[in-house]
Amino acid sequence: MTPAIGVFDSGVGGLTILRELAERWPGENFVYLADTARLPYGTKSPQTIRQYLRQNVELLQRSELKAIVVACNSASTVLLGEPIDGPVPVFNVIEPGAEQALKVSQGKCIGVVGTRATIISDAYPKTLKKLDASVETFTQSCPLLVPIVEEGWVTDPLTNMVIYRYMNDLLGHEIDTLILGCTHYPVLRHAFARVCGPGIELVDSASSLIQLLEAHPELQLSQKPEPSRRIEILCTDLTYHLEGLIQSLIHPLEASSIQLVDISS
Amino acid sequence: MTPAIGVFDSGVGGLTILRELAERWPGENFVYLADTARLPYGTKSPQTIRQYLRQNVELLQRSELKAIVVACNSASTVLLGEPIDGPVPVFNVIEPGAEQALKVSQGKCIGVVGTRATIISDAYPKTLKKLDASVETFTQSCPLLVPIVEEGWVTDPLTNMVIYRYMNDLLGHEIDTLILGCTHYPVLRHAFARVCGPGIELVDSASSLIQLLEAHPELQLSQKPEPSRRIEILCTDLTYHLEGLIQSLIHPLEASSIQLVDISS
Repeated sequence: MTPAIGVFDSGVGGLTILRELAERWPGENFVYLADTARLPYGTKSPQTIRQYLRQNVELLQRSELKAIVVACNSASTVLLGEPIDGPVPVFNVIEPGAEQALKVSQGKCIGVVGTRATIISDAYPKTLKKLDASVETFTQSCPLLVPIVEEGWVTDPLTNMVIYRYMNDLLGHEIDTLILGCTHYPVLRHAFARVCGPGIELVDSASSLIQLLEAHPELQLSQKPEPSRRIEILCTDLTYHLEGLIQSLIHPLEASSIQLVDISS
Repeated sequence: MTPAIGVFDSGVGGLTILRELAERWPGENFVYLADTARLPYGTKSPQTIRQYLRQNVELLQRSELKAIVVACNSASTVLLGEPIDGPVPVFNVIEPGAEQALKVSQGKCIGVVGTRATIISDAYPKTLKKLDASVETFTQSCPLLVPIVEEGWVTDPLTNMVIYRYMNDLLGHEIDTLILGCTHYPVLRHAFARVCGPGIELVDSASSLIQLLEAHPELQLSQKPEPSRRIEILCTDLTYHLEGLIQSLIHPLEASSIQLVDISS
């Protein structure tokens, strides 16, 4: 089997990224690892997130890989401060998201929403300002949105109200672009669009990550469909509810296998 | 120092129980362990919860203890199936909660709310029916309520709406008693009372646990205030937000210390 692309997330939110990568490159194998035994990361400390990330990258590297994508904003923030050395390149979602936001922003007034860990890390504002010192940034942590997505209340009017509550301050700052800085949030894209209105561009990690990978020809990513290509899903904990959620998030693709793995062994 | 009472919870919800125990027995030392590096438990599988619980009980037993209280419903459910042997008695919150509910219920029609793990385990209905085969039970998992308490939205109108949404079916069954089967929920007691109205008795774990411990004179629990008694809080992960939450949940008591401990060592 040709080396796969490893995709890591604390939970199932990163499946929104896996799906887009797998659709873009139907000739590639993928191994997705969800640390569901210890999720969420977004409420935890940088020290703990770093320790978990290191263990997860080791676990992924038991498969033969050509690259690793850390499809989790909270985990990506600790990578910025301390990159992981290893045999294959490790990509994070912060840098491509920031670049994409600067590309689409007219007035250079950019809002960022994410988990508490992502927002406290200040990773997006720092990266944005490194790329363009003139940019203005405003941030808001939205801790309830991950559990809301995992509860499946995606089109619920209550979800709109929660998003409106969180967005209230950012809207007052007249941002022209909003980075959806958590892999769960693209699932709520329509709700964010309703609350933000047409004057605010929404930027999510998946599309910007695709552009980043396209800029790495040495990865030789194949767009030629390969009927026997595999999409393996590994989880450190697995429940009936989670299995259903995985299948609905990866749809219309299908996982070749969904397996429980032990992070401690 | 005299042996302490160990109290365990996946997170800070169990502090509502710690506070009541510590107020009831001001002559006792307490050691509280929160597995904040791996919370929440309520969305995880019984296998994973059992493994975590065993590690946490071992960690607590590094202190000299006279008893352990598992102040977490999701963890208590795995104890019912497989009790933990050890040098000190281990109490869970399911059995006292079920007994208390049967005591106050007029019509023996009892509702139970809890995390997904607690509800799927069927621990409350099984325990209730063992105590009284004639009881009717109805259950509802409320996965959003733990994150809502941890976000601090306790008196928010949105929280009432979420609780109303969850309670809708249970109210249709004309329950006369509701077990708040998660240690986070007593914080939302007023919101539950508003949604349920005066016809439904609310039962929470803290008060029923006190009655259970009172029935164990061999523990020699002291009500005589001891100015030098200690309340130690141990957490497997610690953030600034969490420290504030701990202090607000334990108020008006004060922790003697809040310490980070490594579960893996």
